[in-house]
Amino acid sequence: MSVPPAEIVVHVCTTCRPAGGPDATEDRPGAILLRALEDALTARAAAGAPLPVRLEPVACLSVCKRPCTVAATAPDRWTYVWGDLDPATHVDEILDGLARYAASVDGIVPWRERPQIFKTGVVARIPPLPGDAPAAAE
Amino acid sequence: MSVPPAEIVVHVCTTCRPAGGPDATEDRPGAILLRALEDALTARAAAGAPLPVRLEPVACLSVCKRPCTVAATAPDRWTYVWGDLDPATHVDEILDGLARYAASVDGIVPWRERPQIFKTGVVARIPPLPGDAPAAAE
Repeated sequence: MSVPPAEIVVHVCTTCRPAGGPDATEDRPGAILLRALEDALTARAAAGAPLPVRLEPVACLSVCKRPCTVAATAPDRWTYVWGDLDPATHVDEILDGLARYAASVDGIVPWRERPQIFKTGVVARIPPLPGDAPAAAE
Repeated sequence: MSVPPAEIVVHVCTTCRPAGGPDATEDRPGAILLRALEDALTARAAAGAPLPVRLEPVACLSVCKRPCTVAATAPDRWTYVWGDLDPATHVDEILDGLARYAASVDGIVPWRERPQIFKTGVVARIPPLPGDAPAAAE
């Protein structure tokens, strides 16, 4: 079941810093992930396969022990938070998962269709406000 | 800084079950927490101090390793997810924190004013959709 993709907002925490990690803001993993996602989205659009993703940097998602962390949200959809993301290896997997999220009815992608990092890295999910979308079980 | 309290929605995960915990759905910690919160809200309203909280049970917040778990959300506010909540000891503290959340401008309660369980138990927070409310740092 799918609907035309809606624009989804993806918040990327640019602040958290693993123990011993770089102090300079622009060198932190989340800042690197944000730039890598921006570049990958630009490349997809240039290749004629744009994704309806709006990236938004955020100072803190309060998941400080599991960087990098992102949250995907959109009106009438479940919000998902994922952590343990590596900008060096996970960008394609993240975009694949976001494309499936965008194409879903309510933000819930069937378990077997989720990229591995969205299974192991899930931090939390929150329903849309009541009345906005049907409830769904995991 | 405060505004008139808005109705906030509090999702309570009723499913998760600690290792060795009860199997019967109604005996699980989240189900017990939901009933305890309902009772406490009713008592507050009867005492003339109602809280603008709408409780919503939910089957899964994907924070399965930290029961009990709740998520507070409202339009134009940051969403917060908290875990490690104990229905036997934390109900008053949870309602105190929710009252402060409801009275805040954007869902962000100053750190020093947060109940202890909302400091240690924070799982994640997610900004409102862009344009809905001002950004804020932790």
